[in-house]
Parts: sequence; structure tokens; C-alpha cells
Amino acid sequence: MKKNLLYVIIAIAMAAVIFGLGILASSITERKAEKEFTYKPVVKIGENEPRNDVWGENFRREYETYLLTEDTTFRTKFNGNAMRDALEEDPRMVVLWAGYAFSKDYNQPRGHRHAVTDIRNTLRTGGPLTPDEGPMPATCWTCKSPDVPRMMEEKGITEFYIGKWAGKGQEIVNPIGCLDCHDPSTMNLRISRPALIEAFERQGKDITKSTLQDMRSLVCAQCHVEYYFDKTKVENAQYLTFPWDKGSTVEDMEKYYDEIEFSDWTHSLSRTPMLKAQHPDYEVHKLGIHGQRNVACADCHMPYISEGGQKYSSHHLVSPLKYIDKTCMVCHRESEETLRNNVYEHQEKILENKILLEDVLVRLHLEAKKAWDLGATETEMKDILSGIRRTQWRWDFSVASHGAAFHAPIEILRIMGNAINIGSETRVKLARILAKYGFNQELSYPDISTKAKAQKLIGLDMEKLNAEKQEFLKTIVPKWLVEAKERESKWKIIRY
Amino acid sequence: MKKNLLYVIIAIAMAAVIFGLGILASSITERKAEKEFTYKPVVKIGENEPRNDVWGENFRREYETYLLTEDTTFRTKFNGNAMRDALEEDPRMVVLWAGYAFSKDYNQPRGHRHAVTDIRNTLRTGGPLTPDEGPMPATCWTCKSPDVPRMMEEKGITEFYIGKWAGKGQEIVNPIGCLDCHDPSTMNLRISRPALIEAFERQGKDITKSTLQDMRSLVCAQCHVEYYFDKTKVENAQYLTFPWDKGSTVEDMEKYYDEIEFSDWTHSLSRTPMLKAQHPDYEVHKLGIHGQRNVACADCHMPYISEGGQKYSSHHLVSPLKYIDKTCMVCHRESEETLRNNVYEHQEKILENKILLEDVLVRLHLEAKKAWDLGATETEMKDILSGIRRTQWRWDFSVASHGAAFHAPIEILRIMGNAINIGSETRVKLARILAKYGFNQELSYPDISTKAKAQKLIGLDMEKLNAEKQEFLKTIVPKWLVEAKERESKWKIIRY
Repeated sequence: MKKNLLYVIIAIAMAAVIFGLGILASSITERKAEKEFTYKPVVKIGENEPRNDVWGENFRREYETYLLTEDTTFRTKFNGNAMRDALEEDPRMVVLWAGYAFSKDYNQPRGHRHAVTDIRNTLRTGGPLTPDEGPMPATCWTCKSPDVPRMMEEKGITEFYIGKWAGKGQEIVNPIGCLDCHDPSTMNLRISRPALIEAFERQGKDITKSTLQDMRSLVCAQCHVEYYFDKTKVENAQYLTFPWDKGSTVEDMEKYYDEIEFSDWTHSLSRTPMLKAQHPDYEVHKLGIHGQRNVACADCHMPYISEGGQKYSSHHLVSPLKYIDKTCMVCHRESEETLRNNVYEHQEKILENKILLEDVLVRLHLEAKKAWDLGATETEMKDILSGIRRTQWRWDFSVASHGAAFHAPIEILRIMGNAINIGSETRVKLARILAKYGFNQELSYPDISTKAKAQKLIGLDMEKLNAEKQEFLKTIVPKWLVEAKERESKWKIIRY
Repeated sequence: MKKNLLYVIIAIAMAAVIFGLGILASSITERKAEKEFTYKPVVKIGENEPRNDVWGENFRREYETYLLTEDTTFRTKFNGNAMRDALEEDPRMVVLWAGYAFSKDYNQPRGHRHAVTDIRNTLRTGGPLTPDEGPMPATCWTCKSPDVPRMMEEKGITEFYIGKWAGKGQEIVNPIGCLDCHDPSTMNLRISRPALIEAFERQGKDITKSTLQDMRSLVCAQCHVEYYFDKTKVENAQYLTFPWDKGSTVEDMEKYYDEIEFSDWTHSLSRTPMLKAQHPDYEVHKLGIHGQRNVACADCHMPYISEGGQKYSSHHLVSPLKYIDKTCMVCHRESEETLRNNVYEHQEKILENKILLEDVLVRLHLEAKKAWDLGATETEMKDILSGIRRTQWRWDFSVASHGAAFHAPIEILRIMGNAINIGSETRVKLARILAKYGFNQELSYPDISTKAKAQKLIGLDMEKLNAEKQEFLKTIVPKWLVEAKERESKWKIIRY
């Protein structure tokens, strides 16, 4: 019996050792969480709190990565975060946007932290010296700041869309951040901008029924979409509206705009009623293979990071190529170099056709101007202007969004092929009109080798525009900042 | 001590049970091979044996799947194995090939088993009644049969390329099969066609050093490539040559052809010295993502099948969409329906731009003809003809291969965008020439709604062509078959 007892003791001892090994293995594989794993708020976040640093006290890791959107050094081959002058890099666009603010100034996009600074600094918003001065309407602020949902809550949505951009500068000082996408009490993703909610409603859909995975794209789709300002809805208001009622392909949205006879501006050379595509990132993404596989924006632009036993979403919204090991490689088993080069190759091919298409458009605008100058009639030019509008809308849809060459290269190249075809067919017709008016030769391609030359060609007085902007930055913006500081200093922060 | 013995016995028994479970698990997971797993040849296969059924006696499973290439019922959405009249489905191509045999007759491709029948039946090979009659050279047989490597071995390579197609009909009766890709003694993959070996040599590469994975595409690349007939190399011979010396992109090969001032024919309407792309499947595949990932032709077109404990390659070479579970799904974790629809979507988008491009080409040929008719000079037309040649080469490269829309959709759409651009720019120039000669209006698009109407437009006497073909099939082909039967009946089969 003693032996039996010994066996039992040995068995128990072995069980204990095995149990211990299990504990050890678990500790190694799961990595013990640090203390702060449990969410312990430091401050109480108010229901309209626009200050990102206040949120940051409770969510340090998310906030620290969000601050990285200030970093403007990362670049992909053709795109990047740095302040690069897109018009200098490709002055054709100056001609394409003649008569429209984008011809004055257009830079490569930068991170969310720069949103407010950049909209103040760009020549597109001009140099208004009074709250009622243009050129831009208040609606232009909509996507720039968490002060926007705060103001909409405090003053009403329609009220927000009324008046000039210069009238709300003192209210909007915090760059795109926490309140734009999160519910301050639950931290759940939420839609803070009415335009997206309303677009869903008009299609008979309730956005609150969206899945979490859909929400991980929809919070981005509040701003990263095609939109226009509806001047017919409420008097004096430019009501932010998404043109999705017929669908969201390039053809669907064109049909929508054509039916309401909308145009963003009239081209100053060709006299075409033009459409400006904004940045239909969400629409383009949905047309590509990642969108079709229900990969969300956040899956690649906000990859999970594991730090100190915690897993959290990076809020350094940037090209996924910056963190290939945490983005692409979650699904794709190729080297970083291979994956990066795959993206570059697609970008190169699309860039090639983009330039072809832009040259067609430059020629179209100038040849149309020539036809007008020679005495062509409205009737003769009707088809021509329609062709120019359709060509440039397709071009702009293809190039205006971030990462279109990655998100949906096949759809983008299909659209570009269509656009080159429409534009060129229009040039054939224009050649006949020009011949009729005695000009039967090639109109020489203009010297637009620099931004300055292109801006001179379309008649912009850049010296004046720059001087107005400097005056505005010197006299108006400092006042805005003082007023904002005074307002925010009154908001108490409750600490736990 | 009895208790101790009992414990020992129990331990041994448990070990035995565990061992038994291991054996069972192994048997379940590995599946026991059937007897015939070991290769036991039934017949001895001669070193130039062109008869596929003889090989089939030793390799029944491979042979049975090879026989399935007779099946012409499987279709993908836009392509398939059935005998479909491509010119009837898209009569624009008749105009594009005016003056060239493809305008007479062009069908959707069928399986390897039909190779010899189809080349006899097509109007492209005409109705030669003597061995020296045209229209086609002997070289046209090169890719149709394992009788070709047999003849090249027996009579010499250059000798094979000399003379007319009609002169070798009695020799070539076995459709594409075993000897084309396999070494009869080792069954290893081998290159039987000199054109591929020579193309590698001219680039300083030794094809015998290729990896097995490369060979699984290269055996296909013996035929599924772009090629031309070099008439300058050996007198009276049309020497099969691949235009790869400068690379194998659409631009590389165009440069090669331009430098040697090669043209396949002169277009009968526009008088353009044209290039005809054959079927650059291998080149296009290498430009796409699957090719870049070193996926071989055989990986998708010859999937592994597991039967009776054996794993073998299907020789039913057909669209991988027929066996999605064994092809795409080896790597991709989506449903068959999703994967199929992804391919269809790409095909639809490319088809859309293909039609746009074809309409540009139809107009170009007719407008150029109009210019000639009105008296345009060679000097005036030089640029125009160059533009037409470049446009149509890009079109043909994009559409002539099998599965381009799948293999490299982004590259194909890039090329199509370029082609639409070159073609349209050429139309603008043509409009000016036409205006100069007093024709300043749109040339109405011809009624080419059917193949018959298009063939009438380009002046083909289809009744005569069909009658000649029928006479040939009735009088010549039967003689070829008798002669072949007599020859083959003398070849003894050695059985083990």
C-alpha cells in the first residue's frame, strides 16, 4: 500500500508540474497585460468636446499615434504626406481648372492634424477681411474639425451651412479628431456629419443599422466622398449633399448632376459648365477588390498595434505602405518589397494614362476657346461642351481621390479609357468646327511647363492673390485664435 | 509485486492502443495508394510517336482528361470552348482585318483535340487543290500537331518551314498532344519547338536550364505566344520567329517589328502596313499578378486531381473557371460564385473599352480610305498610317490572347487607353486632311451589324471562298487521311 501511495504522490506531483508548465506557457503566449489594460478614464469627456488633447488624456496610445499625422515626411512613390505643390508637379491641372479656385493653389494632401491650418493657408479660401466676405461658403469648414459637430449641435445644421467661410473661423480651431468619429460617452464609432446620414435616408437606408465593420469605413465616408453644395434647399445656405441617389459610380453620379443641371463652375477658356470631383475615396474603394471583399478603411489605414500587452488601432492615418508588415502582410504572404512594387506598378500605369487624358483635356479647352474666338455659335458648341464636361468629370473622378490607383485600378483604367475616347471624339468634332471657321491646322500646345506659366496663361494675378492671403493671415487669423482661446478657457475639465 | 506487474501490463496495453490509433490516423490522412500507383508501362513509346492514343495506354488518367478537350460545351461568360463565330459576334473585326485572311473566318478557340480539324476547316487556309497552292505556308502547321516534332526530326527544321501548307497535309493528322510537351523516354517536360529555344538563345538564355516550375509554362509558350514568319532567313522558307529580342511587352515587340520594317499585310481600305498580333498568352500572363507571382500556366489550366489514391494533372486544358474548386480555390478563400464574378467583372470592363477602341479603328480605316479617294498624298498620309498601325497593334495585342482580361487586366487597360489615345489623335489629324480636300463632316458609320454586311463592305466574295473550301474538304482531305493511315499502319507498337 505504501508503493500505491508513492504512485499517487508521483502522479499528483507530475500533474502539478504539468499545471505549472501550462501556466508558464499561457503567460508566454498571451503576454501579461499591463495594469492600464482596464479602461480607467482620467478626465470626463463632455458630449461636444472638440479638443483632441482632452480625449488624449484617457486614450494615450490612440492619441500619440494620432499626433503622428503631423509627420509630413512619409512618401509613397507618387503620393505622400509632405506639403507638395500638385500644380507645380503637373501644371496641366491649372488649365483644367481655369476659372475655379483649384487653379490658384492645390497641394498634395497632408495628415488630419493639418486640416485647419491648411484650409486657412490655401489660396483657394482667399483673403476675406470681414465675416461676410467670400470667396468660400461656411460649408467648406464641414470636414475640417470636431468643432463642426459641436457647432451643429449648438446652433443647428442648417444654420451651420449659412453664410461665408470667414464668418466661422473663430469657432473652428481644432483639427479633425476624436469627436468626429467617436461617441464621447461610449467611445463607439458614430456618424457626426448629417450629409452621410441624409444620403442613406434618401436611399431608404438607416445608417444606425450598419455593422461594426461597415462603420469602420463609414466614419471615413463622412468626408472622403464626392459631394456638392445644394443652393436650392435652404435660402442662403449651401447645403452639403452627396450625389448618391442614383448610385455612386462615375456614371451614376454624372446622371444625378445632369438631371439637376448642376455645375460647379463655368470654365473660363472653353465656357463649359464643369463638374469638380472632390475626393470620392469611399466610392472608389467600394469599386475595387478590397472594397468588394469588405475590407474596411480602418483595416489598412488604422492597423492594429500590439504594445505592452495591449492591442489598439493606430490613429496615424496614412498610406498603408508605411506599415506594410501590419497592413498588407496581415493577408498577403509576399515580401514588403514585392507588395510595395505591386502598388507602384499600378500607380505608374495609371499615371501614364492620366497624363494622356490631361493632354486631351488641355487641348480641348484651348481648341474650344479658339472656336469661340473665331465665332462658333452656341448651337455648334453644345456637343463640344457636353463632351468636355463628361471627359473632365471622368478624369477628376479618377484622380481626385486618395489612392485610386490602389483602391480600384481596373475601374479607374476603364473610366480613363472612356474619358480619352469621349474627349478625343469631341476633338474630332472641334477640328471640323475650327476648319469651318478657317482654322484647319493644329493649335500649338501651350508652354505650361511650370505652374507660373500655366497660371499666366489662364490670366490669374498671383501677386494679388498672394498679397490678399498674407494680409488675411496677418490680421484675421490671429483674432480668430484669440477668440477661440477665450472660449475654450471657459470649458472646465472634470478630472476623476 | 503483482500490482506492479498489473501496472506494467496496463501501461503496455495503453501504449499498444495509442500505437494503433496512430496507424489508423496515418491511414485516414494519407489514404492508401492503390496498386497502380507505381508506373507500369503497357507499351513502349517510340521517340517520335505522334499518336496520342498510344501514349494513352500508359497514362490512362492523363489521356482521359486530354480527351475532354473535345468537349465544346463549357463556356465562360465571354469566352468558351464551343465553335462560336467571333466575326458574327463582333463584325467590326472584319473591317479591322480587311485584306487579311482573318476577315474571312475567325472562330472562338476550341480544345487541343480539334486543332487539326479546325485548321483544315477554316476559310483562312483556303481551298488548295495541289501541294504547291496557297494561300498559307507550311509554317502554319507548326503548332497543330505532334506530327510536327516528328517531321522536324525526320526532315529537318528548315525543311519543315519550306513550301505551302497544302504540301504537308498528309503528314499532319494527330492533334496537339503528348509528344508536343513530353520526352517519350523520361516523360519529363521538354521543348519540342525550335522557335522558343531560338528566342531564348538570341537573348543569351539556355532554355534547358529552366526550372520545373518555369517549364510548366514554357511548354505552353511554344505556341501560346506572339510570333511572325521571317522570310529573310532561309530562301523559300517562312521561318517561325518570336519577336522577343527587345523584350516582350507590347511596346518592345512593336519596336522590334518597326526596326525590321515588318508588316503582316497591307490593309485594303486604309492601305496601312499592318501588324497582326497572334495569341500572346504567355507574354500577357507574365505581365499580370499571377505571372509575377510565378504561378505557372499548368497551376490553373492543369489542376491536380486526386483519384483512387493518385494525384495527377488534368490534361483537360480549359478555362480554370470550369474547375474553380481545384484551381482558384487552392489559393483564394472565397466562394466559387464570388471568384467567378470577379473574373466576369474584369472581362466586362475590358470588353467595354475594347468596343470603344474597335469603333475608333473602324472609323480610322474608313476615314483614311476616304482621304485616299479624295486625293490625299503619301506624304500627308504617312503619320496617319503610322497612327493606325500603332493603334491596331495595341488593340490586337490586348484582345488576341486567351484570357487577357484575367491574366493582366491592368496592363491591358493601360494599353487600350494608349491605343484609344493614339487612334483618336490620328482621327483629329485625318479630320484636317479630309477638310482640306473639301470633306468637313462626319463620315457616317457603316452598317456592319452582321458579318455578312461587313464582309460585303470590304469586298469579300464569300460564296467563292466557301465553294473552294468545300471542294478542298471533299477532294483533298480524304486523300491526306488515306495516306496518313497507310503510314501509321506500318509503325509497330511494342507491348510489354
